[in-house]
Amino acid sequence: MLTEFDFIQNIKDRYGLDRIGDDCAVLPKDAETDLVITADLLLEDIDFRLDWTTPAKLGRKALAVSLSDIAAMGAQPKWAMLTLGVPETVWKAGFPDAFYEGWFSLAREYGVELVGGDVSRTPDKIVINSIVGGETPKGRAILRSGAKPGDVIAVTGELGGAAGGLRFLLGGGQMNEAPTSLIDRHLLPVPRIKAGINLSALGVSSMIDISDGLSSDLAHICQASGTGAKIFAESIPADDKLSRLGMTDEQILEIALNGGEDFELLFTIEAEKFSGLDSLLVSAVGEVTAKAGIIELIRDGKKSVLEPKGYRHF
Amino acid sequence: MLTEFDFIQNIKDRYGLDRIGDDCAVLPKDAETDLVITADLLLEDIDFRLDWTTPAKLGRKALAVSLSDIAAMGAQPKWAMLTLGVPETVWKAGFPDAFYEGWFSLAREYGVELVGGDVSRTPDKIVINSIVGGETPKGRAILRSGAKPGDVIAVTGELGGAAGGLRFLLGGGQMNEAPTSLIDRHLLPVPRIKAGINLSALGVSSMIDISDGLSSDLAHICQASGTGAKIFAESIPADDKLSRLGMTDEQILEIALNGGEDFELLFTIEAEKFSGLDSLLVSAVGEVTAKAGIIELIRDGKKSVLEPKGYRHF
Repeated sequence: MLTEFDFIQNIKDRYGLDRIGDDCAVLPKDAETDLVITADLLLEDIDFRLDWTTPAKLGRKALAVSLSDIAAMGAQPKWAMLTLGVPETVWKAGFPDAFYEGWFSLAREYGVELVGGDVSRTPDKIVINSIVGGETPKGRAILRSGAKPGDVIAVTGELGGAAGGLRFLLGGGQMNEAPTSLIDRHLLPVPRIKAGINLSALGVSSMIDISDGLSSDLAHICQASGTGAKIFAESIPADDKLSRLGMTDEQILEIALNGGEDFELLFTIEAEKFSGLDSLLVSAVGEVTAKAGIIELIRDGKKSVLEPKGYRHF
Repeated sequence: MLTEFDFIQNIKDRYGLDRIGDDCAVLPKDAETDLVITADLLLEDIDFRLDWTTPAKLGRKALAVSLSDIAAMGAQPKWAMLTLGVPETVWKAGFPDAFYEGWFSLAREYGVELVGGDVSRTPDKIVINSIVGGETPKGRAILRSGAKPGDVIAVTGELGGAAGGLRFLLGGGQMNEAPTSLIDRHLLPVPRIKAGINLSALGVSSMIDISDGLSSDLAHICQASGTGAKIFAESIPADDKLSRLGMTDEQILEIALNGGEDFELLFTIEAEKFSGLDSLLVSAVGEVTAKAGIIELIRDGKKSVLEPKGYRHF
C-alpha cells in the first residue's frame, strides 16, 4: 500500500509543487518578513480519545501541535484559526466552551490571536482543525532540506515520554495512579517555540519537530536534504521516567527511536556552532552523512540500518 | 440549544476578538496589501455524500467553497492548503488521486498554488479541510459590517438552484435523469471571484457569499452592520429551473430565500453606484434599513418579518 509520504511526494512531482513538504508553508510577507503557516487535523479515536483527556486539555493540545510546527521553522507564532466539528450530543454537553478555554490558555502564553475559524456539526466524532501562522525574518525559515554531511544531529529535551504515556493509557492504566509526567507528555505537549527561535538565530542547517518519531523524522530530513545519517544509541536522550513503566533498556531505546508526539525539535548544525549550545538543553545524537537515504544506528560499536518506524497513517 | 452563531458571538465577546466573524480573516501583509484567509471543513454525510458525487467533483467543490469566501471579500485567491482525511478502504480504492485531480483542475483556473496540507487516516468517514489565502489592496477587503441604511441590497446570479438539486437527490432522484444544471449547482459550485473583485472596485459597502441561504446570510450582514433590511419577494431571482422539479411558486420563493450553497454574492451598495451595474448580472432585491436586526419581506404589497431559516449546524 502506498504510504502517505509516497503519496505526497507523487502529488509534489505530478503537479510541480515546490513549497509543500515542510512543517509549515513559507510565503513571502513583506520586504523583511516571511509568513509560515501550518494546518493540523486532529481526529477523535485516531489522534485522541475523550476518556483519556478533558476538553480543556484537548484545546491546549490542538494548539500545541501546530505551535510545534511553527517552532520547527524557527518562527514566532502570531495568529490562529480554529475549526471545531462536534456531534450534537457533545455540543449540548458544553464541550466547546471548555475546549476553547483550554485553547485560549495556551494562546495567551504565546501571544497568539484567534482570527477565524468555524464550528460544524459532525455525524459522530469530534474533528479539530488547527491553523497557525507565524513569522520569520525574510529567508530565514529553517527547512528540512538544509542538512550537510558532517553536521551534528541533535535534539532538544528527552524522547519517548509521550509514547510511553500513550502506551500506559492503551494498556488500561488508570490516570490517577499513573506516572503523571509521562501522561502529560502525551496529553499536554509543550511547543519548543523559544528553542526554535534561538536555534534559528544560531544558524542550524535543518530542523523538524518530532511528531512521528525520531527515526521517521530524521528520515524526512535526510530525504529532503539528500543525505544520510548515523546516530549513536548511547547518545539518545530517552525519557528517564520510562523505566518506571517496567520497560527494558531495549524497549526504552525502541520507544525513544520510534515513539511519536514528543514535539521536541530535531535539528542539524555545523559542528563548530554546536559547541556553543548548552548541553543541558540539547543532546547530540549523531552526524549527517553523504549516504543518501541511509540511516545507520551505532550501538555497542556495531552498525545496523535503522528503518523509519515512527507513526504512519498509511 | 445555543446556535453556532450565538456560540461564536459569545467567544468573540468573552475573549475580546475583533477579527473573527467574516467570510475570511483579514491580516496585514505589506504596505500595499492585506492577506485574507479562510478555512472550511467538509465532512462526509454532513456536507456531502459519496453516492451523489465523484472524488474529482468533490475535490473541485472543496476548493470552490473556500474560493467563494475569498470572492466575498473582493479578494484575489493566491494559495491554498489542503488536508484530506480518509478511511483506509477509501485510501486503497484510489480516492485521493482523483480527488486531487479535481482540486487541481479548479486551482489552475484561478491560478491558486498548493503550498501545504496533510494526509490523515480517519476511523470511518472522509474529512476535508480546505484553506485558501488571497489578497486585496490594503484596507479594501469588503466586510459584512459596512451596510448603511438606504443602500441597495443585491445578489449575483440566481438563487435556490443548489438547494433544489440537493432536494432532488435527497428525494432519491437518479443522477442520469435529473435536471443536471440543478444538481451541478449543488455538486459543482462556481466561485464568483471576478464578480467579487469587480464589485469591490465599484465600492460595495458590505458583502457575503450565500452559503447558508439568503435569509440567514442577509441576517449576518444586518447583525454585523447594526442595520435591518427589507426585501421584495418579486425581485428575488429564483433559479428558473426550479419549476422543473414540480415546485409551486410558494415553494420556489421559500427555497430561494432559505436554500443554501448557491455561492452567489450578496452585497449592499449605495443606490447611485448600483445604477452603474449590469442588470443582467446582478439583481436588486431590497434595501438596507435602520431597524437593527429586523428583516422585512414585502410580498404583494404586504410586510412580514423574515426569520433566518438557512442552514444551521446547531
